[in-house]
Amino acid sequence: MIIVMKKNAPEEHIQHILDELKSKGLQPMPLIGTERVVIAVIGDERVLSEKHLRSMPSVSNVMAVLQPYTLVSRDTKFEDTIVDVAGVRIGGDTVCVMAGPCSIESHEQLLASARAVKSAGGHILRGGAFKPRTSPHSFQGMGEEGLKIMKAVSEEVGLPTVTEVLDPRHVELVQSHADMFQLGARNMQNFELLKEVGRTKTPVLLKRGSSATIKEFLLAAEYIMSEGNPNVVLCERGIRTFETDTRNTLPLATVPLVKELSHLPIVIDPSHGTGKRSFIASMSRAAVAAGADGLMIEMHPNPEEALTDGDQSVDPEQFAKIMKDLGPIAGVVGKKL
Amino acid sequence: MIIVMKKNAPEEHIQHILDELKSKGLQPMPLIGTERVVIAVIGDERVLSEKHLRSMPSVSNVMAVLQPYTLVSRDTKFEDTIVDVAGVRIGGDTVCVMAGPCSIESHEQLLASARAVKSAGGHILRGGAFKPRTSPHSFQGMGEEGLKIMKAVSEEVGLPTVTEVLDPRHVELVQSHADMFQLGARNMQNFELLKEVGRTKTPVLLKRGSSATIKEFLLAAEYIMSEGNPNVVLCERGIRTFETDTRNTLPLATVPLVKELSHLPIVIDPSHGTGKRSFIASMSRAAVAAGADGLMIEMHPNPEEALTDGDQSVDPEQFAKIMKDLGPIAGVVGKKL
Amino acid sequence: MIIVMKKNAPEEHIQHILDELKSKGLQPMPLIGTERVVIAVIGDERVLSEKHLRSMPSVSNVMAVLQPYTLVSRDTKFEDTIVDVAGVRIGGDTVCVMAGPCSIESHEQLLASARAVKSAGGHILRGGAFKPRTSPHSFQGMGEEGLKIMKAVSEEVGLPTVTEVLDPRHVELVQSHADMFQLGARNMQNFELLKEVGRTKTPVLLKRGSSATIKEFLLAAEYIMSEGNPNVVLCERGIRTFETDTRNTLPLATVPLVKELSHLPIVIDPSHGTGKRSFIASMSRAAVAAGADGLMIEMHPNPEEALTDGDQSVDPEQFAKIMKDLGPIAGVVGKKL
Amino acid sequence: MIIVMKKNAPEEHIQHILDELKSKGLQPMPLIGTERVVIAVIGDERVLSEKHLRSMPSVSNVMAVLQPYTLVSRDTKFEDTIVDVAGVRIGGDTVCVMAGPCSIESHEQLLASARAVKSAGGHILRGGAFKPRTSPHSFQGMGEEGLKIMKAVSEEVGLPTVTEVLDPRHVELVQSHADMFQLGARNMQNFELLKEVGRTKTPVLLKRGSSATIKEFLLAAEYIMSEGNPNVVLCERGIRTFETDTRNTLPLATVPLVKELSHLPIVIDPSHGTGKRSFIASMSRAAVAAGADGLMIEMHPNPEEALTDGDQSVDPEQFAKIMKDLGPIAGVVGKKL
Repeated sequence: MIIVMKKNAPEEHIQHILDELKSKGLQPMPLIGTERVVIAVIGDERVLSEKHLRSMPSVSNVMAVLQPYTLVSRDTKFEDTIVDVAGVRIGGDTVCVMAGPCSIESHEQLLASARAVKSAGGHILRGGAFKPRTSPHSFQGMGEEGLKIMKAVSEEVGLPTVTEVLDPRHVELVQSHADMFQLGARNMQNFELLKEVGRTKTPVLLKRGSSATIKEFLLAAEYIMSEGNPNVVLCERGIRTFETDTRNTLPLATVPLVKELSHLPIVIDPSHGTGKRSFIASMSRAAVAAGADGLMIEMHPNPEEALTDGDQSVDPEQFAKIMKDLGPIAGVVGKKL
Repeated sequence: MIIVMKKNAPEEHIQHILDELKSKGLQPMPLIGTERVVIAVIGDERVLSEKHLRSMPSVSNVMAVLQPYTLVSRDTKFEDTIVDVAGVRIGGDTVCVMAGPCSIESHEQLLASARAVKSAGGHILRGGAFKPRTSPHSFQGMGEEGLKIMKAVSEEVGLPTVTEVLDPRHVELVQSHADMFQLGARNMQNFELLKEVGRTKTPVLLKRGSSATIKEFLLAAEYIMSEGNPNVVLCERGIRTFETDTRNTLPLATVPLVKELSHLPIVIDPSHGTGKRSFIASMSRAAVAAGADGLMIEMHPNPEEALTDGDQSVDPEQFAKIMKDLGPIAGVVGKKL
Repeated sequence: MIIVMKKNAPEEHIQHILDELKSKGLQPMPLIGTERVVIAVIGDERVLSEKHLRSMPSVSNVMAVLQPYTLVSRDTKFEDTIVDVAGVRIGGDTVCVMAGPCSIESHEQLLASARAVKSAGGHILRGGAFKPRTSPHSFQGMGEEGLKIMKAVSEEVGLPTVTEVLDPRHVELVQSHADMFQLGARNMQNFELLKEVGRTKTPVLLKRGSSATIKEFLLAAEYIMSEGNPNVVLCERGIRTFETDTRNTLPLATVPLVKELSHLPIVIDPSHGTGKRSFIASMSRAAVAAGADGLMIEMHPNPEEALTDGDQSVDPEQFAKIMKDLGPIAGVVGKKL
Repeated sequence: MIIVMKKNAPEEHIQHILDELKSKGLQPMPLIGTERVVIAVIGDERVLSEKHLRSMPSVSNVMAVLQPYTLVSRDTKFEDTIVDVAGVRIGGDTVCVMAGPCSIESHEQLLASARAVKSAGGHILRGGAFKPRTSPHSFQGMGEEGLKIMKAVSEEVGLPTVTEVLDPRHVELVQSHADMFQLGARNMQNFELLKEVGRTKTPVLLKRGSSATIKEFLLAAEYIMSEGNPNVVLCERGIRTFETDTRNTLPLATVPLVKELSHLPIVIDPSHGTGKRSFIASMSRAAVAAGADGLMIEMHPNPEEALTDGDQSVDPEQFAKIMKDLGPIAGVVGKKL
């Protein structure tokens, strides 16, 4: 921690802070500059609240030296984490493709989706049973019935599944029907839910909040890992910006940035990331070229009929074409599909 | 709903949309423009999903004419809603001041706070027992013990109370100890929690999400009202912007904007809205001058010792000075404290 | 400057940086922490580029201790600056109101505006002759003819004037017709223009860029002052946020923040700040309650007929009502109109 | 244009708008809905100001149907524009790579850069002589001397050149020394400068403003084309977001979005787009995979010694590696380097 004092801070205010730091077992080093005093703190600064120091008299600024997360940090674990989802591996030298409809609508619809995913070479089936909707007047998902359909289709086609959980009270139910939890962007800081999935060992696909920084994203993953679940896969699904011609803005530099800071796998969702069907192919290629560990793509047997997100779903034919293009690009970055 | 077709959209695509609209009981009006066809839709467009229409062939853009919310809208109910919190009224021609510490830390600390609130003329005591924290390594609040302290202090001093609820499983517990639920900014789109407090009649202070639009904020209130609870008070607590010298950016035009669109009361939180103790007085005055129905101010008997948010809490003396200045300003806008 | 090294940075990388710092005449202090080495730099760090240091091997982060501006800083000059605009003072214990139409349209229109400003107690007449427009197909202003009208009206009514300058080649022309330059939000970082007005002694009203931070805003003022012109008045006119129901979001905490960091006066533009006529009165009151040194309000004799910005202009009657309400609020903050 | 009236708008307000529309030669179509009246306007709505209509009584909302630009629109010209820069073609089925140092520092430095660009297969040499710097205390570029160096190196090595112009008074000077103007992000809405380069036929590389929408970006290009210069190349260089761990956020979906809306070529700048040397390779690959028409990469013979932007410049070896990886990816999207 670095504490910058105000110009002309009185001696007693400086001493007060030195005493406070020592009382927490830290070693303060006052540096007398040309303009002001700066206090460097040696020791694990995380025992201190940055804000608390800011409220002390004559403090001008406080700067943290260490990142606030440890479990997710590459400083703590250097090797890439590989998460196993019912036999499918996410991370390392593979590109894992998760695909399927936004919402589960019927057994028939999900089965058609799963077959299209499987035959094009996709690895995991996605589909939503509980849907977080901005308006209470919108379709809220099939709930438990949808989960049952998902389980049946998964067994029939032979694909692991991922589905969203919204409510800490549903964790057990979802866990018994799917192979991976999805935590949606709106719940990235729903700490009670993070803790609840953290108490299981089921893999978690954690989506970035639409206005979250990477630091907050990694701290959300830290919540899950703190409770004992190491099987976290990060998912960039686009952020809110001033642009309204796309639903979200997809920042692909999240891939190298997360890989620099953390050992966790990172996948890209080009469907929510753009909100436009016609942009999904180009953003899928770009994500793999950037080094992503996987993709989550919305695909519907008949997007025009989809109850939710039809405008950002590809159809099976478009999906197959995307899969075909990804192979040579994955090769350039030393990965395989 | 207005549907703008692409230039040179083929006749059959236009017909396809006309058929779809009629099948939903709406009355489409195709307008043949100089450059393209535009279809105006007569009837309650809310039965249709904007996105679904966007995914249809040859559609260039879809524009909603009506706001997506109804219960919270001033079009539905013209008169200002006044919410009664254990005898204290929020809305109408009064300015209601809620104050107290960020976190409940002890009976002694909360009692000192409550007395300071009361003696300076404040109306409601705030204090957090369950704390949503960005890092799992930070203090998470006293939980149920904090609630008990709050209830005891409330009775002792004679002030109604407001406290945050984070988890749908805690709604009943919180309700039995406090007079008003607070829903925090991070939970503005925690739809399960919105529904759960919506099933009670207890007043709810709903904070705006830090990157939410006003439309999304009102839709969150619509969730609560949809379940049957009309006692919603909106709270602007600042939004995230590029500015990092303040914790958040406080948009006071939220006050006239909300008053134009909705009948619900709107209060301002200058503590989270700025994150700086020295800015709270000026933003409190500005909020009242803008016509706000109330304020929520973090006050701590000894801010430097506060476990959370000390840097944005005023002390009792500063609080009393703020209260004193608000009177004449409230008078200018036809309100009284 | 604080330089945080990566964990396990090799000794030679650390030595390399120590040498580099010494070669610039600075005094580096390496601090050996539990996890990593941090180098504190004593001396005027502004001779060093933060980014340059960031590109050195094994550097994890670089944090500036000092603000990058000096001339505008309250550390350099403690007393409030008061800018004199042809006899009208901005800063100190007064609230200065500038008002008038967005665009100068005719002698008649500007004269009617000026009379309304004067009779309601306003202090400076505003009006645009050169207009920066997002589309090349929009009205671009009357140019030099507009300036002549402004000069004539100013003399006729007895009000100093402020008008926008867009092009460094127009500085002399504008200076000979108006009493104060306005630099628009889109030109806040038009450095050639900043330098050009900095070479005069004419007062400058510098508007904040719509996505600029306060630090960038103050650095733009620093450009003007660096060239020798101390007569800078800052103007907050709202920032771009995700909210689209208002044209901009008006952050009134800019007032206390600027006053803490700088000695320059700060005024508020509630017209651009909201883009809605019906919000101008409440935001004018709030600005004065927050302690602003003045207001810039768009007023048009007949807003519905205005060539530009009619939707955010008040009419003379509304303006007079606003002026009347400001007096008692100014009194609360120790100012007078 | 679609004009949404308020609920219960009086008949005379509606009539007033119908008259106004007819007086502009437009054909209004009032649609009587269940809740309110909506007026659809047939004809070229661009003769009308949206804002002007908004200020009329009983108007609730105004929605434009047409895009405000025409010259840059793919509706106006369907075929891709190919811009010729001294024999190098940008657009169509090629990927054009522009590279070189941020600032021109000496003949030796630029010559070494140009040779590295040429030998790795790059097409155009970049280098800045006039530098827009946030602080007046930073290095401002070599000016005219830099331009002379650039011209000499260009002839020596045989590469066309691109360099930034900041001031409308320098257009002629820059034009006589370089093959393409660069307009920086901060000048995207410097309308006087846009007009001035629009009066030449020299190709213009127009960078997106760091908080501009795509619509504003295209309108800036429209300014240049309106003055008669059709040789515009768009450049996405990243936008400002809440993320501070990267300098900017690079939205690669700009590529398919611009290609959908406009016929102009679009190139990507991964150096400013991320601000981190270690991210440039992955973002270059991703940009080409997304279908970009080119790249602008900062490369310095010795990045650590660079006067500006060293932290986001690759060295010649890294540049050669990037070029090598791009070939196979370009092949997947039907392009060649």
